[in-house]
Amino acid sequence: MNYGVVIYILGRILQAEGAFLIFPIIVSIVYGENDIWAYLITMGICGLAGTLLSLRRPNKGGLFLKEGFFVVGLGWILMSAFGAVPFVISGDIPNYIDALFETASGLSTTGASILTDVEALSRTNLFWRSFTHLLGGMGVFVFLSALLPMLGGNSMNLMKAESTGPSVDKLVPRLKDTAKILYAIYLSMGLVEAVTLVVLGMPVYDSLLLTFGTIGTGGFGVLNTSISSYSPAIQWTITLFMFLSGVNYAMYFLILQRRFKSAFKLSEVRLYFCIYIICVALISFDLRNVYTSFSENIRLSAFQVSTLLTSTGYMTADFDKWPEFSKTLLILIMLMGACAGSTGGGIKMSRVMIIFKSIKKQLQMLIHPRAVKKIKVDGNVVDHDVVRSTNAYIAVFCLFLVISTLLLSIDGHDFTTNFTATLATLNNMGPGFNLVGPTCNYSFFSPFSKIVLIIDMLAGRLELFPILLLMTPGSWKRRL
Amino acid sequence: MNYGVVIYILGRILQAEGAFLIFPIIVSIVYGENDIWAYLITMGICGLAGTLLSLRRPNKGGLFLKEGFFVVGLGWILMSAFGAVPFVISGDIPNYIDALFETASGLSTTGASILTDVEALSRTNLFWRSFTHLLGGMGVFVFLSALLPMLGGNSMNLMKAESTGPSVDKLVPRLKDTAKILYAIYLSMGLVEAVTLVVLGMPVYDSLLLTFGTIGTGGFGVLNTSISSYSPAIQWTITLFMFLSGVNYAMYFLILQRRFKSAFKLSEVRLYFCIYIICVALISFDLRNVYTSFSENIRLSAFQVSTLLTSTGYMTADFDKWPEFSKTLLILIMLMGACAGSTGGGIKMSRVMIIFKSIKKQLQMLIHPRAVKKIKVDGNVVDHDVVRSTNAYIAVFCLFLVISTLLLSIDGHDFTTNFTATLATLNNMGPGFNLVGPTCNYSFFSPFSKIVLIIDMLAGRLELFPILLLMTPGSWKRRL
Repeated sequence: MNYGVVIYILGRILQAEGAFLIFPIIVSIVYGENDIWAYLITMGICGLAGTLLSLRRPNKGGLFLKEGFFVVGLGWILMSAFGAVPFVISGDIPNYIDALFETASGLSTTGASILTDVEALSRTNLFWRSFTHLLGGMGVFVFLSALLPMLGGNSMNLMKAESTGPSVDKLVPRLKDTAKILYAIYLSMGLVEAVTLVVLGMPVYDSLLLTFGTIGTGGFGVLNTSISSYSPAIQWTITLFMFLSGVNYAMYFLILQRRFKSAFKLSEVRLYFCIYIICVALISFDLRNVYTSFSENIRLSAFQVSTLLTSTGYMTADFDKWPEFSKTLLILIMLMGACAGSTGGGIKMSRVMIIFKSIKKQLQMLIHPRAVKKIKVDGNVVDHDVVRSTNAYIAVFCLFLVISTLLLSIDGHDFTTNFTATLATLNNMGPGFNLVGPTCNYSFFSPFSKIVLIIDMLAGRLELFPILLLMTPGSWKRRL
Repeated sequence: MNYGVVIYILGRILQAEGAFLIFPIIVSIVYGENDIWAYLITMGICGLAGTLLSLRRPNKGGLFLKEGFFVVGLGWILMSAFGAVPFVISGDIPNYIDALFETASGLSTTGASILTDVEALSRTNLFWRSFTHLLGGMGVFVFLSALLPMLGGNSMNLMKAESTGPSVDKLVPRLKDTAKILYAIYLSMGLVEAVTLVVLGMPVYDSLLLTFGTIGTGGFGVLNTSISSYSPAIQWTITLFMFLSGVNYAMYFLILQRRFKSAFKLSEVRLYFCIYIICVALISFDLRNVYTSFSENIRLSAFQVSTLLTSTGYMTADFDKWPEFSKTLLILIMLMGACAGSTGGGIKMSRVMIIFKSIKKQLQMLIHPRAVKKIKVDGNVVDHDVVRSTNAYIAVFCLFLVISTLLLSIDGHDFTTNFTATLATLNNMGPGFNLVGPTCNYSFFSPFSKIVLIIDMLAGRLELFPILLLMTPGSWKRRL
């Protein structure tokens, strides 16, 4: 491990986090709240620690894939640890583990909460809580890559560790430009949503926070009832933007380049679209006797499928009370997740596609043992490395799922609660079933279980390997 | 598909099944029961159908891997279909779907039952029900391979489809001898167990049936209380033989050859042993306040871990009432299963090992990107094909798990019931949790759900691909 470069980048990340605290400070000035001190103190701490860590500028190079994964894993842990401080200082979440849970949940865009009464938070704290979704959605390292050419061309290794999906490509030759394009699409989409919500009658503050939660596929809301008390038009708007946030950003890039044909041919996006339609149809059919009004039925089905497929975690219906078939289908959707290259969580469409194609290949090899078969996506042969890393991802995913469910069971809650809580945090979903159902929260877990869930959330957001690497003693060795 | 060879072998299998019916006929003569007619009629049907199908002897060769998988899949379905007939004719299980469920459960050594009162069955029917465990445990095709050199050397493809584990090796150069050795070990182990049980005071009839259930890792019993009403000595005996049945038979072969060093070095068996000890320790610690007597605690823990790790499905305690941690650990054990090359079900130790080594390899490639790493087991490099087929197995396993849980949810029962019922049938376990807990049975499921579970049981026993192949339309095409 090249510690010089790791420490330097961690320092830069803390400085960046300190800088972002300007936004909640502005909010506290606007609303005249006392919390300004909590944020000013935290800003000072971040700035000081960040500057100390980044004093020694390392030589160029030395940021290999391993360092990239390492620094991204550590960076997200540090950001969560420092981001939790204002909640404690301001007294709104006095317990540090709870504050850490809330911040990690925000940054990882999970949206799982330990709060029983969201509306009791100050406006400043509520803003910062949702703002972490905006930061975490597209990624802080991607943001930094857009601003500063931190360490030469090797910054790609940071983006590889932070972005979603089995293979990460640059959209344009220069990484800095790719990061800028991604952020431009991300923020434009948010702007359109926020303006639409304001036009539909929502206050600016609420519309901003809900937009952060939507485009980051996070799920923190403003009201205790999540989205269910808003008008149908607002619910449909959020349904649409959640769905759009789950699309692979490569499609938007192709549309911007006017390559419409290629854009609509992306097989991952097509699969995402098909699965969406099928699930909404199946669930609204299953709910035909629960909601007798067709418009209500289709609105609630479409919203819940959007929120669970993209791992956002907003809700407009208590789906824990829905029939078993719908509930099981929703668990399945939670597992699959959105497209690679989006801000959504879960296993991702492209991995599901690669796995199905591997099964097909295995069957074809039984039928025609001598045929040489390659797995292809969009006409391109999928590299053997990508297939292998997809398989490794699934294996590690199952490992996290199994161990975490087992560790949560020590608390003594039922299997459905533990299993879906793990699934909901590992996939950055938010709500699960039973005790962690959509109308409940995570406050009842023991501190130990909360730490397990915090690890799940961060591991899920970073697609497991950065966090797994940190847990591997061999990776901490100094590079010779 | 070479239908000539497929039809011929299916005919032979039916003839063999007809021949096996001699055993329940003997039982019905001994106990003077009327059921003899049900078995004589079925024997006639099997004999006739078998002879008609095997009239045309195909040319040698033509039994490729695909035909092997195909004929084994179809063969097991046919055996279940014909084996269910006596239960219906005798009137003990009048509903054919129920009888089919019970027979498929027996043959696949699952041990899941639709019977609410096992003791109401005639002695003949009860015998046939448990005898299917003996047939299914080591496999009918393996048995036939031991007797007749059916179709030249290609019979290996039958054994590959029927045996457990990611790679099947011949113990000795001639397949026929390998099959004989396997059956000799299998039956000797059974003999030792049956004699021990008789010595411990069990009637011969009961000891035979429980032996079939143990060495086949099936789980059908004689009493409604499974094993819980027997003496501690009998419980310990069954614990031991369940454990031994989960060991890779390669170890016994090495011991017979006096190659003790190699035998005890098999890493799969070591892992199996370690996991066994750790799980018993963890569970008996978790149960320290449930059973205050240490001897009872350790006996119940050891029994339940044996039964679930080897997917037998006997029980001496209602583990559905145990603390959540123990329950979750038991679900985890159910998933893992016993060693490859044993009669046990589940994912198998060797696959778990290969998966862990793949994860390790993936991590090492992050740490040392240029190092060339091979996955090794017992000092041998694991072939790339084996790694790929292991990954494909896991993927198909998840697919079956997800789709079957979804289909069961249509009945409206809870998630834990549906999920563990699928897991328990797919892993040839038997009992699950909640409504399919150890003191319950599968009778409440709808006929549709029962058919889904029958497919799960057969698919699980044949390690998924033979059944998946039958569901693939392309595989039914005639070979040109």
